[in-house]
Amino acid sequence: KNYNIALIPGDGIGNEVINEGVKVLKAIEKMDDNLSFSFKSFPWGCEYYLETGEMMDEDGIDKLKGFDAIYLGAVGYPGVPDHVSLRDLLIKIRREFDLYVNLRPITLLNEGLTPFKDKRKEDIDFLVIRENSEGEYSGAGEWLYKGEPEEVVLQTGVFSRKGTERIIRYAYEEAHKQGKTLTSVSKGNALNYSMVFWDEVFEEVGKEYPDVKTYSYLVDAASLYFVSDPGRFEIVVTSNLFGDILTDIGAGITGGLGLATGANINPEKNYPSMFEPVHGSAPDIAGQDIANPLAAIWSVSQMMDYFEEKEWGEIILKAIVTILNDKDVLTSDLGGKASTSEVGDHFIKLLEKY
Amino acid sequence: KNYNIALIPGDGIGNEVINEGVKVLKAIEKMDDNLSFSFKSFPWGCEYYLETGEMMDEDGIDKLKGFDAIYLGAVGYPGVPDHVSLRDLLIKIRREFDLYVNLRPITLLNEGLTPFKDKRKEDIDFLVIRENSEGEYSGAGEWLYKGEPEEVVLQTGVFSRKGTERIIRYAYEEAHKQGKTLTSVSKGNALNYSMVFWDEVFEEVGKEYPDVKTYSYLVDAASLYFVSDPGRFEIVVTSNLFGDILTDIGAGITGGLGLATGANINPEKNYPSMFEPVHGSAPDIAGQDIANPLAAIWSVSQMMDYFEEKEWGEIILKAIVTILNDKDVLTSDLGGKASTSEVGDHFIKLLEKY
Ligand SMILES: CC(C)[C@H](C(=O)O)[C@@H](O)C(=O)O
Ligand SMILES: CC(C)[C@H](C(=O)O)[C@@H](O)C(=O)O
Repeated sequence: KNYNIALIPGDGIGNEVINEGVKVLKAIEKMDDNLSFSFKSFPWGCEYYLETGEMMDEDGIDKLKGFDAIYLGAVGYPGVPDHVSLRDLLIKIRREFDLYVNLRPITLLNEGLTPFKDKRKEDIDFLVIRENSEGEYSGAGEWLYKGEPEEVVLQTGVFSRKGTERIIRYAYEEAHKQGKTLTSVSKGNALNYSMVFWDEVFEEVGKEYPDVKTYSYLVDAASLYFVSDPGRFEIVVTSNLFGDILTDIGAGITGGLGLATGANINPEKNYPSMFEPVHGSAPDIAGQDIANPLAAIWSVSQMMDYFEEKEWGEIILKAIVTILNDKDVLTSDLGGKASTSEVGDHFIKLLEKY
Repeated sequence: KNYNIALIPGDGIGNEVINEGVKVLKAIEKMDDNLSFSFKSFPWGCEYYLETGEMMDEDGIDKLKGFDAIYLGAVGYPGVPDHVSLRDLLIKIRREFDLYVNLRPITLLNEGLTPFKDKRKEDIDFLVIRENSEGEYSGAGEWLYKGEPEEVVLQTGVFSRKGTERIIRYAYEEAHKQGKTLTSVSKGNALNYSMVFWDEVFEEVGKEYPDVKTYSYLVDAASLYFVSDPGRFEIVVTSNLFGDILTDIGAGITGGLGLATGANINPEKNYPSMFEPVHGSAPDIAGQDIANPLAAIWSVSQMMDYFEEKEWGEIILKAIVTILNDKDVLTSDLGGKASTSEVGDHFIKLLEKY
């Protein structure tokens, strides 16, 4: 089987970490006679914007349509306002391709990585399912009376029946299949339209899954529990913005952004899904060959799962667990001294042992 | 000097913890010849709602107007939807009295309380200044095509020039007076109207305070840093919703909600300011005399600061630090076995030693 993968290395360290991920894909191809990958790289991002005035080609979405997956590095760089760079590339792809499911595992892969005194691997092992196509990120709003004393700026979250129901149903389906509990995170006591609606839909769809045990938390309480009692979570479903925040807390309790991955999925496979490390472009360390490529490599594992090459998905994850035991071949954010490419090279060697 | 204090014990454990706070106020009155307090208690809350159909009297806001401060326990109880109970009492008072500054200290009072391996007191000691009157909590929205497939629910955050400028200016003023750094938390890369505006105002007002060193973080990054590197914060200014979330993470890293307090301030003193523990009504433990009253007692310290009785404010805080060393007189959430009233009684004794 051949998979066509569109590469968007993007900005800053994006390029450096994607290189290592591609190394991993090529190593897999070598080891597995039934698998091959073709790559096409797109030079989109902030540099491109500064040259062309566009973050991606006008027909960029069309260009990406035929691929089996998109592998994205990072977007954003000083000099281009974030609300331009992100909204016109990352958020645009999520929306236009209806990648409405964002899967972010919060898993403690190595006990040395948690900042907590007393947390073990089994205490931090859950999945956040983030709504990824609308909600607070809809981009709707108004900027009225600019420059006048009456100036007022409106930002509107858009929660459609379709968009809310499908992410919640997806989460129930996962909880049902995996035999796990499902926790919804919302904020009905303050966001009196959107989150009251969210809670209603969560209850409604729940009737179709009487076997799934559910919890419903306010986002502030959930944020606290992520820190004080992460063991209570198995599968979490939440809105676009809350998912953004919660998964960064998740990164904080499991070793930082160097190990945080996200799969942007269109479950119907009408469009290519997108895989990306959660860290940004990290301008402060870009170009130094010290960025941690493990999040980007974990994204490859998620890509394999999505291709239903689950064995490879698992092998990659196991190899990450193994490499984390050896500081000598880790980057400085994890206490090591290795360069980005040294991590990748060592990783390939580990992979060959499985 | 006499201060008139309106008590709104509210629901669940609200009543229990407010009792202990009032004990502290009465003890101060006894010890300080220059200070006295008058109390009037209002029975508002969810029980009141179930009897009358209203969370507070129709002229409730008028009734509160003449007081020097409001001391609130907790609001919310199963049987009354949260978006009714909270919006019609707590959020209503914050808004109608223009209590636009919410001061929430994130301070590690005892090193045993942090869940982290290696954090010392000096690593977690900062103040979150939360916008408290508008923004995401404006209550504006629409629920369209209810029950139809096209159903869509809109929730609009309202960021006015006045509202945004005054909270940011307040924060700069504090940073300037205290000689501290100021960190703004926003999310301009996704919330392309409100947060871009917020960032602009933060930069603009900053020009008036060239001596204040500033940082600007995305809310997801800030959430991560609250966990991985809280030492980088001194004063934080942020929106209503982000402040809600961040301060609960703050509670998580400093010992839980049993020790989290918030002062809702109208700096112009046009209206009574309101002091409250951040924890909710905790229906699961209500009526058992095991709720931790220390957050409510810390609120009394904030009230004293607000009355410019700073010495008392400090003494109360010192006594909290002292009592935290003695598990025997703490509630179970802090590893002790004492009842709510035993904590209060012991606290008074400590206070008398200062
Ligand atoms: C870069 C930014 C727009 C993005 C988001 O907010 O979704 C990122 O933080 C993420 O979590 O993928
Ligand atoms: C109870 C709720 C409405 C409130 C809020 O969201 O502001 C609370 O969480 C708080 O932080 O004071």
